Amino acid sequence: MTGRKECGVVLVGCGTVGGATARVLTEQADHLAGRAAVDLKLRAIVDLDFTHARELGLDEGLFCGKLDQALSGEGVDVVVELVGGTTAAREVVAEALRAGKHVVTANKALLAQHGPELWALARQHGVCIAFEASCAGAIPIISALSGQLAADRVEAIYGIVNGTCNYILTAMTERDQSYADALAAAQQCGLAEADPTLDVAGIDSTHKLAIMAALAFARRVDFEKIHVEGIDRLQLQDIRYGQELGYVIKLLAIARGQAEGLSLRVHPAFISRRHPLAWVSGPFNAVSVYARNSGHTMYYGRGAGGTPTAAAVVADLLTVALGNAQRNFQLLGIWPDRSQQANQLDIEAVRCRYYLRLQVADRPGVLATIAKVLGDRKISIRSVLQHEAAGGSADDSVPIVITTHRALEGNLKAALNVVNTHPTVKAPCVCIRMVDEPAEGLE
Amino acid sequence: MTGRKECGVVLVGCGTVGGATARVLTEQADHLAGRAAVDLKLRAIVDLDFTHARELGLDEGLFCGKLDQALSGEGVDVVVELVGGTTAAREVVAEALRAGKHVVTANKALLAQHGPELWALARQHGVCIAFEASCAGAIPIISALSGQLAADRVEAIYGIVNGTCNYILTAMTERDQSYADALAAAQQCGLAEADPTLDVAGIDSTHKLAIMAALAFARRVDFEKIHVEGIDRLQLQDIRYGQELGYVIKLLAIARGQAEGLSLRVHPAFISRRHPLAWVSGPFNAVSVYARNSGHTMYYGRGAGGTPTAAAVVADLLTVALGNAQRNFQLLGIWPDRSQQANQLDIEAVRCRYYLRLQVADRPGVLATIAKVLGDRKISIRSVLQHEAAGGSADDSVPIVITTHRALEGNLKAALNVVNTHPTVKAPCVCIRMVDEPAEGLE
Repeated sequence: MTGRKECGVVLVGCGTVGGATARVLTEQADHLAGRAAVDLKLRAIVDLDFTHARELGLDEGLFCGKLDQALSGEGVDVVVELVGGTTAAREVVAEALRAGKHVVTANKALLAQHGPELWALARQHGVCIAFEASCAGAIPIISALSGQLAADRVEAIYGIVNGTCNYILTAMTERDQSYADALAAAQQCGLAEADPTLDVAGIDSTHKLAIMAALAFARRVDFEKIHVEGIDRLQLQDIRYGQELGYVIKLLAIARGQAEGLSLRVHPAFISRRHPLAWVSGPFNAVSVYARNSGHTMYYGRGAGGTPTAAAVVADLLTVALGNAQRNFQLLGIWPDRSQQANQLDIEAVRCRYYLRLQVADRPGVLATIAKVLGDRKISIRSVLQHEAAGGSADDSVPIVITTHRALEGNLKAALNVVNTHPTVKAPCVCIRMVDEPAEGLE
Repeated sequence: MTGRKECGVVLVGCGTVGGATARVLTEQADHLAGRAAVDLKLRAIVDLDFTHARELGLDEGLFCGKLDQALSGEGVDVVVELVGGTTAAREVVAEALRAGKHVVTANKALLAQHGPELWALARQHGVCIAFEASCAGAIPIISALSGQLAADRVEAIYGIVNGTCNYILTAMTERDQSYADALAAAQQCGLAEADPTLDVAGIDSTHKLAIMAALAFARRVDFEKIHVEGIDRLQLQDIRYGQELGYVIKLLAIARGQAEGLSLRVHPAFISRRHPLAWVSGPFNAVSVYARNSGHTMYYGRGAGGTPTAAAVVADLLTVALGNAQRNFQLLGIWPDRSQQANQLDIEAVRCRYYLRLQVADRPGVLATIAKVLGDRKISIRSVLQHEAAGGSADDSVPIVITTHRALEGNLKAALNVVNTHPTVKAPCVCIRMVDEPAEGLE
């Protein structure tokens, strides 16, 4: 059709997501043309190695070894950065912005660590950055945070944003596998890397949290100050006790406004089996957002994978082609380069509920002693679980599981320091945070 | 601040949602001003009776008895229609559009029945209609369908979009209450009207389905042709058998592309306990969307209530103020006034799985007879549940529960016509459709 507007796209990095994006743009071009008055036109694919691109049967006429050459071509409006990492990718994005091209990126690490400088650079050159694909794959959480939730006031975010961790925790919970066995299973089905550190230590979730929290609270977030704990030290027996009490373990990326400031943290947490996040299983992701007017909304879907992530990239391309991404970038007040620094709370200032497991001597008065140490620091007990001793433990000790009401983490740590030195306590107390949001159902 | 752009709002209808919208616009004006470079300014509240508006303490200087007077005021850009129904509301919307004002509405009945004519009228006058609040309250499903999913290809939608029905079904499932008792409980806590027909007969869900399906499939939908069955004839024993088989009953609004056309229907359906929709409980809503690239995404939240719905109205006002709603309306190809008529399938052409409960004589060969009747019509059995007879049924009959593989509904009905006349079958077969989507989890 003549006269139709075109939006020219240069794609940089043709790996799993890049390849899938190129396929969607070419194979579904007719369908996309029916959906909008602007055509998305793939002008060039930039990479150092085109083996994967060739395997996918992509048009070799689009292959280009040099970014500057691709950028200087005619009718290039937007650059899709799918290189990953924070070194080459940072250069690619900066070069594109300086050349006056909009950028679409899936790069969470880059935005978490260098977002404000890149947003500022984009503004300087009159262009914008779209990044739906950076958080939770196909889930349109960035759209939600910069759409309806930007007109609301977010109070808390709880995200399951790492599919590898969620797969492992689901396997531990449902198959009763140890952490090591569940990790091996995840590696076997391609859901975990040979070196799984970035995922299981919580770093990947922290990147996504930094991006989501910045938009949700319209504050600049210091990525380095986010408290992070991984899933690699979780023990099966705690998962089992949690289940007995009605809770499921998840690795959560949490941003929560408290009176004193903003609490940002990634750690394993127990969540009520009645909360919809508890049912997000296997490699799926979900993000729960609590906002003043909307109340609780949750967004669920595939958090990774070539085609689901490409869906988010193509959606971003369409919002750029329509001009909406630009308007949002100009007119909304939520972007980190315009925001004040968040007052990020230390982990000691967090208030939440806690699950505690103590291995104690099986003799009278032990529970009373522990309860007193906790009570002295304003920590009140909500439930206690102690089974009749099965007998046979080497040191005649028994586990006691305690859940607390909401308490200050600093107070809890002080109490545990005392508890752990008590002669009747045989091993350091295991402590897992609990999410405490109102039940949703018939109550 | 001088020089800031303003977007003037006239609100028509100050009931539950209207009152909440007025409160958000006035009480959260400072917060909203920080979120966007355009100020939303409430210019007038139009209603026939201001009792509720006065109770809320809204500024009486805004009260106005006549729409034309409010529309002719200075700086009015958008009209929010929260009158409800399809008579006065239709006039309000048409008058606003003819006056060149954008319209924001929560009115599902109006859009389901008169959408195309109103969209066309809007286009004629160079304005747009935004309607996030019309479907599923605070859940931004219209944003999702006109955003990321418009750049994808939707294959199916399954929505729990009526909180009253979901509350009743949750109570039947979790509290073992009869339909009548659960309805009474819903009425007692204000979740069901004295005359609950619009909800329990599925009409309200059908309105929402018509709107969602039109956008998702970019087709004009004939609301009258949507097949609808309510929840009022469901029996507790079927819910219990379903649970035993691993299924939960929900009232679902379903749009599903089949090779032959588009299947649109609202009816109770069994869904696997492993599907996230199964865990949507009480008055909450959720919409699952299956799309070619994104895969399965689900959107969860409060489907009704003043403030949650107001959140969607205010979000729409912001997208209008930013100019994004207008661009989407102009540039996207998904709006019903521009779409072809959908090829809507008769219910007989639906293919799905079925749950069947038969009350049969407890004697040899009965199951074989039934299986043969089904098999002759290409319906294959997936599972059979028959407990040992407890004895004591008046006619010495026993229930047999059968689930089928995917089958054509026309064939199933033909088979049941035969089965129901068989002398060993003591009561008409109970038949409930089952949703069959891939499991999500460790498999």
